Amino acid sequence: MTHAAVALDLGGTKTAGALITATGEILGQAAEPTPAQRGASAVMATAASVSRTLLDEAKERGIEVRPVLGIGSAGAIDPYTGNVLSATPNIRDWTGAALSRDLAALLEDVPGRPITTVRPVNDVHAHALGEALYRKNHGMTAEGTMFLVAFGTGVGGAMLIDGKPQVGKHFVAGHVGMTPMPHHRDSELFAAGSKTPEHMILENACGGVAFADAYRSAGGQAELSTAREVFARADEDASARRVIKASAEIAGAFLGGIVNMIDPDELVLSGGLAASGHSWWEPMIETFLKVRLPGITTRPVAASSGDMAALLGAASLAWSDRNPAAPTD
Amino acid sequence: MTHAAVALDLGGTKTAGALITATGEILGQAAEPTPAQRGASAVMATAASVSRTLLDEAKERGIEVRPVLGIGSAGAIDPYTGNVLSATPNIRDWTGAALSRDLAALLEDVPGRPITTVRPVNDVHAHALGEALYRKNHGMTAEGTMFLVAFGTGVGGAMLIDGKPQVGKHFVAGHVGMTPMPHHRDSELFAAGSKTPEHMILENACGGVAFADAYRSAGGQAELSTAREVFARADEDASARRVIKASAEIAGAFLGGIVNMIDPDELVLSGGLAASGHSWWEPMIETFLKVRLPGITTRPVAASSGDMAALLGAASLAWSDRNPAAPTD
Repeated sequence: MTHAAVALDLGGTKTAGALITATGEILGQAAEPTPAQRGASAVMATAASVSRTLLDEAKERGIEVRPVLGIGSAGAIDPYTGNVLSATPNIRDWTGAALSRDLAALLEDVPGRPITTVRPVNDVHAHALGEALYRKNHGMTAEGTMFLVAFGTGVGGAMLIDGKPQVGKHFVAGHVGMTPMPHHRDSELFAAGSKTPEHMILENACGGVAFADAYRSAGGQAELSTAREVFARADEDASARRVIKASAEIAGAFLGGIVNMIDPDELVLSGGLAASGHSWWEPMIETFLKVRLPGITTRPVAASSGDMAALLGAASLAWSDRNPAAPTD
Repeated sequence: MTHAAVALDLGGTKTAGALITATGEILGQAAEPTPAQRGASAVMATAASVSRTLLDEAKERGIEVRPVLGIGSAGAIDPYTGNVLSATPNIRDWTGAALSRDLAALLEDVPGRPITTVRPVNDVHAHALGEALYRKNHGMTAEGTMFLVAFGTGVGGAMLIDGKPQVGKHFVAGHVGMTPMPHHRDSELFAAGSKTPEHMILENACGGVAFADAYRSAGGQAELSTAREVFARADEDASARRVIKASAEIAGAFLGGIVNMIDPDELVLSGGLAASGHSWWEPMIETFLKVRLPGITTRPVAASSGDMAALLGAASLAWSDRNPAAPTD
């Protein structure tokens, strides 16, 4: 008989789910929009609904489902209690939600295939776990030390040590975007997009949200509002090129510092900026190589897992004997 | 019968040793100057001589000595092979030295109490291990996640995860001073002391070596050559105060970023700058608290272990079943 676990990826826009085997094969998928503004109970009901769709599909196809469900969720998650400790207002009332308890309660009455345990982790940590599984391709156990930086609208990240996501003492580890911005001759470009110009942070230069403001600071004349639009003007517009280069060099300096400090097995970049091509990647690498210590050979590599990473990471929680994000004692 | 292990701390100036019990009690100490400019064989012979002094003392006092010796050594150390992978020229020919093999060979013929195994680790990693042992006071097993930054002449550091020093893929993890300097309005003060003004690093602002140059950049009139002299003038000299404040704020920004990214159980500061008192510590903490995320309560604390940390950390290697710095497989 085929076995699979239910894995969920609960974000502010979409709640995705999949049936995933112990070797990472995706047997089925489902998704619903997250009713983020209707509050925690509605969000939980949607997560349960996606799970039931997958449980029904498993029953139809004769797939035996593990009683443990893995979920990557927005917010800082306590892996011991399964509670949401804090979250942005993207999902209303999400802070304080008893994610593991309440979702398990909604799924315990499914006849013949109850979910008894819900193992949660922050969605960026799930993403990193999944990326590690993709790269190593060793079934559902991640290995080694990986530092992942997601350059999206904001900048997030996660560190795996011996395959284990480091959630931190207060479960907020991975706020890579909240590290101070490295010194750069053109850093003032990003002051307009910073809440506190005195303490500019990495996200102010390397998150997509900052690009339009920085473009105006660089003298850009067009009316732009997204990073994508700034990148689209790079060929014709020196202001756009200046912003992209400064952002990339700041990212490269940061990443060079990370390898000098952590010396990870792998340094993986995901998100829109990391996928934006040569105009960002080349100055990023050039600066990275200037900062990196002799003796280190690691280079940043692009994420390979695409959209399935967080689901695969969530599945690895379900296939573990325990929550791998929870510290050992 | 009392049991002890021989622990060594091999630095560029001094080779210190101690007999240390499984609960961290120091039963005896010995030290000799390191003949750093006479090369690896002379340095190894000195390490063996310090060890023999301790072995003799143990014999006299009826202390049974463990056949495993722990050593913290300058340089990047491969914990699998026990070789020195790279080192500064402070110790001549230290790069490439077969530390574990050659030191064990020099000690295997001690009648009745041979050393059969030498477990080495980088000295900053030994220091962090020892500091963790001091703080937890749980015998010879370090616990939890600790980030240690040593603000000395240079800036070094070490990260313990679940009590294990993270040595990194190329065994160079912990080069905290080689991370790019955080953005700061007064960072140009430190350009004169930087090898590459374009890519200023933390050490350029927060290592003692930079202070005299920065003092001159700030308009300082006196002929000063050390950080100590700059601190001594703080009361009477605005240039000295400006340098100390900028250095402290840059350190605070860096440390705030570390807790946002790693969220460690403890953040420990050692070294001369960390011990220099309020003029540095206060602006450092003020900036740290501005950068630190809500939800994190961790603050930097001063190291408590004094000079014995590296020896205690080295002893913990000897008391382990295996080198705790070596990755698990």
